[in-house]
Amino acid sequence: MRKEIKMSDRSFEILETKERVIADNDAEAAKVRELLKKHNIFLVNLMASPGAGKTTTLVRTINALKDKYRIGVMEADVDSDVDARTVAEAGAKVIQLHTGGSCHMDADMTRRGLEGLGLDDVDVVFLENVGNLVCPAEFDVGANKRVMILSVPEGDDKPLKYPLMFTVSDCMLIGKIDVAPVFDFDYEACKERVLKLNPDMKIIKVSSLKGDGFEEWIEWLTEQIEMSR
Amino acid sequence: MRKEIKMSDRSFEILETKERVIADNDAEAAKVRELLKKHNIFLVNLMASPGAGKTTTLVRTINALKDKYRIGVMEADVDSDVDARTVAEAGAKVIQLHTGGSCHMDADMTRRGLEGLGLDDVDVVFLENVGNLVCPAEFDVGANKRVMILSVPEGDDKPLKYPLMFTVSDCMLIGKIDVAPVFDFDYEACKERVLKLNPDMKIIKVSSLKGDGFEEWIEWLTEQIEMSR
Repeated sequence: MRKEIKMSDRSFEILETKERVIADNDAEAAKVRELLKKHNIFLVNLMASPGAGKTTTLVRTINALKDKYRIGVMEADVDSDVDARTVAEAGAKVIQLHTGGSCHMDADMTRRGLEGLGLDDVDVVFLENVGNLVCPAEFDVGANKRVMILSVPEGDDKPLKYPLMFTVSDCMLIGKIDVAPVFDFDYEACKERVLKLNPDMKIIKVSSLKGDGFEEWIEWLTEQIEMSR
Repeated sequence: MRKEIKMSDRSFEILETKERVIADNDAEAAKVRELLKKHNIFLVNLMASPGAGKTTTLVRTINALKDKYRIGVMEADVDSDVDARTVAEAGAKVIQLHTGGSCHMDADMTRRGLEGLGLDDVDVVFLENVGNLVCPAEFDVGANKRVMILSVPEGDDKPLKYPLMFTVSDCMLIGKIDVAPVFDFDYEACKERVLKLNPDMKIIKVSSLKGDGFEEWIEWLTEQIEMSR
């Protein structure tokens, strides 16, 4: 089912991408990779808890990259289209994916989302996954890079309790760093816990509201994009 | 598989409660309710995003109730036992449930947890569910009441994006209210969104760190416990 949402000067589609029973997600992920390669698209799978700041981070990232690349965003949500509206206003091509209750995106849903977005209209695509630190980590969607956000208010012990997300990600943004003074967040302890799970993790402290750390994040991301093209 | 963890002056068990394929979760939930009734136990299913403050809220709640009731806690986590240690120190009888990758507790896992905890040793049991605002909402575990926490840093738009959790809960604690001054959280807008989904929701603003709102929360909870006994 597809539905078009018109905003004052732009529009986006809502696509119902309920999870289908797919025997082999890894085979589907390989298909997504082929599709990305064929159309020269760089796909980022962005994952985090609800309210960690995925959308705010995306908006600032889109603003930093949109003069260089045509940006696409797939907004995966159980319901609503609030984030799709925000991201469309920032100037990205957006498609809202309703996961029909599913708590994560899989590779098949991602492929349908990419096709809905338009494979020849975008260079860099962000999948804003469902807000969830558990399930999305279990599904390879075929992305070039997996990026996660852990926000300061969530606490430095999260790598102990949700280890898979920290193990499978390539880059971890420590978000809402601007409010660190009012929280008891031990950066060094957190970093140590993360690197024990994943010695190659790129860790960057950011404030998507204030802009701290964005130079480093955009530099890292641009490097990954350029290396893949 | 069971394993005993010894602390300096107390101990708790770790129980591996991997999800089993159960045809009818509702039938299992009915069994849990029977068990609770038979042993005169009041069970609270506590749900929230990762890092919303479930454990800190539990510790303060245990301290407020432990002179009146024998408190049990089932700590459901994908991994680790950090929360079980914290809660055991507060003086509750604790069992750590490892969900084996599962992103939620179901009724069958809950029953096994209750039996592991000891049905005749507790009056009030809290199930600290896996940190996840999506999946736990889908599973009735047979609890007397479902309580959720939405913490201020997560934002006031969460009811729009994760509606089921707000629909199925009996009480919503708006947590970390002490840091509200540094976040842009619209309490009235949030409340309106929640009541639209669930007109009967009891909403209480709390700071589990500072104690704000605990008088109202403990009063509501004690009332629910007493009414059920």
